Amino acid sequence: MSVTPQQPAVTVLGLGPMGRALTGAFLAAGVRTTVWNRTPGREGDLTERGAVTAASAAEAVAASPLTVICMVNYDATDAVLRQDAVTAALKGRVLVNLSADTPGRARDTGAWAGEHGVRYLDGAIMTPAGTIGSPAGVFLFSGPAGTYEEHRPVLDALGGTHTHLGEEISRAAAFDIALLDVFWTSMAGYVHALALAGAEGVSPRELAPFAAGIAQILPPLFEEFAGDVEDGTYSGAINPLTSGVSSMAHVVHAAEDHAIDSGVMRAVEGLARRTVALGHGADGFSRVAEVLRRR
Amino acid sequence: MSVTPQQPAVTVLGLGPMGRALTGAFLAAGVRTTVWNRTPGREGDLTERGAVTAASAAEAVAASPLTVICMVNYDATDAVLRQDAVTAALKGRVLVNLSADTPGRARDTGAWAGEHGVRYLDGAIMTPAGTIGSPAGVFLFSGPAGTYEEHRPVLDALGGTHTHLGEEISRAAAFDIALLDVFWTSMAGYVHALALAGAEGVSPRELAPFAAGIAQILPPLFEEFAGDVEDGTYSGAINPLTSGVSSMAHVVHAAEDHAIDSGVMRAVEGLARRTVALGHGADGFSRVAEVLRRR
Ligand SMILES: NC(=O)c1ccc[n+]([C@@H]2O[C@H](COP(=O)([O-])OP(=O)(O)OC[C@H]3O[C@@H](n4cnc5c(N)ncnc54)[C@H](OP(=O)(O)O)[C@@H]3O)[C@@H](O)[C@H]2O)c1
Ligand SMILES: NC(=O)c1ccc[n+]([C@@H]2O[C@H](COP(=O)([O-])OP(=O)(O)OC[C@H]3O[C@@H](n4cnc5c(N)ncnc54)[C@H](OP(=O)(O)O)[C@@H]3O)[C@@H](O)[C@H]2O)c1
Repeated sequence: MSVTPQQPAVTVLGLGPMGRALTGAFLAAGVRTTVWNRTPGREGDLTERGAVTAASAAEAVAASPLTVICMVNYDATDAVLRQDAVTAALKGRVLVNLSADTPGRARDTGAWAGEHGVRYLDGAIMTPAGTIGSPAGVFLFSGPAGTYEEHRPVLDALGGTHTHLGEEISRAAAFDIALLDVFWTSMAGYVHALALAGAEGVSPRELAPFAAGIAQILPPLFEEFAGDVEDGTYSGAINPLTSGVSSMAHVVHAAEDHAIDSGVMRAVEGLARRTVALGHGADGFSRVAEVLRRR
Repeated sequence: MSVTPQQPAVTVLGLGPMGRALTGAFLAAGVRTTVWNRTPGREGDLTERGAVTAASAAEAVAASPLTVICMVNYDATDAVLRQDAVTAALKGRVLVNLSADTPGRARDTGAWAGEHGVRYLDGAIMTPAGTIGSPAGVFLFSGPAGTYEEHRPVLDALGGTHTHLGEEISRAAAFDIALLDVFWTSMAGYVHALALAGAEGVSPRELAPFAAGIAQILPPLFEEFAGDVEDGTYSGAINPLTSGVSSMAHVVHAAEDHAIDSGVMRAVEGLARRTVALGHGADGFSRVAEVLRRR
């Protein structure tokens, strides 16, 4: 690969499934990409495709004006970034952290970056590794707008939809954890449903298309519930909590009759019953959001 | 409304939000509709639109060859159907139970119907009351195919997609509870996400479109997981459980730092951690379905 001064360049730290997907997308877009991973040998075919492996994280950072780090969490990124040589190499450069963690950890990293002259953007990836480089990818960013705009052309190589959520460094992480909350609970409901359906003689592939139908009815309900919570309305005219708790109990009882652990649905039902007991039985399930937020 | 001998006719027992929606769709399709509800006066504008209110459930049943019952659960439908006068009126007639309950209750009702000469179909409605009479409605049925085919023209007045899942009476309820499992856990994840996002300064209407994006990534994952569970593959190459448990913990910790009850996500994380501890950390989250089904 010939290197011209105009060629954009990026460093990727972390070569898990997501780091590899990010690297693949940068390479496909013609971005000169330097990689490093704690455990060597995780490059797969990325080297053949043009990725340059650095001998250390500090060397990797020094190779590009922009470093993207994507590791399991901020304990991992701290372990790498807060080594003196790495911090020194990052000084004056731009760092984008696409690992998932809490808003608190994002704020902490933002403060550390400020103290060490690292130009820092926090980010989050809301779609599976397989979507990277395709229109289906969803990326969130927060931090200084100028830094974001400056590096947007390189980041755009990742494809999909990019949203800058604002200057407050923890915004991307706040959206990330809230969306992971929706994701993991939905997936937990689905794997439990597969177990329950199986015990009743319904096969996974029979259930899946109908489960996809449930996913399809969620977005308008999400919008309606957002309105309920933002406006303080919680109408149960169409589907009151009293009706909901009954159908939640059916799920729990049917599953437990098959000796299937139902701790997740028990917790859901418990929240709903507590909300009814607080006097909100005629409200919709959106009232639970308000009860959860009470102090 | 003039009554011609050819005009199809139906009785609806139960005028909650769903019973009212069903009645409205029947009326809109020109079906002669007789209604009854335990608490009088729940007809709303249905009387003006042509619904005939019967003085008793038995009288209502006697008015039509087909009775649709839609109440909170099978404790409620039993309380009505197992009265001697109602059971007698149903003899030789067709009963479709569109209330939600467990497969066990559907089997029990099927047995009762058999003993009393009631031609019985069980059913379930998988979409909100607002979808009834529109293409968005999803209806499931189980029971004798002949009975289903005979009454399909009238039931088609409800609009949407109708699926006959087979002769085994509990099939519709088995799909129903599994799909309610997906529905309620997803909604629980969302209301918790609204509470958590709110505590981090993200408004419900800011979060909702991104949450809709999460709903959009579910169907292909549902399909993939169905294959994993049916074929006994549980690949975590793209998203291993070890990575998942880390992001689940972020949700729990971030929420509990704001004093938001996180019992649901704690239960999800607990399942995932137990699955990792059983030696499946490199597998995907689909492995949890298999662990839940173990005896
Ligand atoms: N995979 C997806 O579909 C997906 C989707 C959306 C978001 N994400 C997020 O993307 C991030 C990365 O995920 P992933 O799928 O690539 O896999 P992962 O299992 O979450 O992370 C693996 C990476 O973390 C590194 N790592 C862990 N502990 C470390 C430490 N103490 N020091 C240095 N490196 C350490 C690993 O290095 P070693 O190889 O040396 O262990 C490897 O590079 C996560 O925050 C995840 O939530 C992933
Ligand atoms: N609403 C929806 O969007 C929706 C969506 C899908 C499925 N469903 C299912 O449809 C069914 C009906 O739901 P719904 O929304 O109409 O409201 P609901 O609150 O679940 O049910 C209300 C109906 O049940 C009746 N009922 C309760 N206990 C009774 C008893 N012991 N004897 C006689 N009647 C009794 C009520 O009569 P009274 O008026 O006398 O109390 C009323 O007619 C439920 O199984 C629900 O899960 C509803």
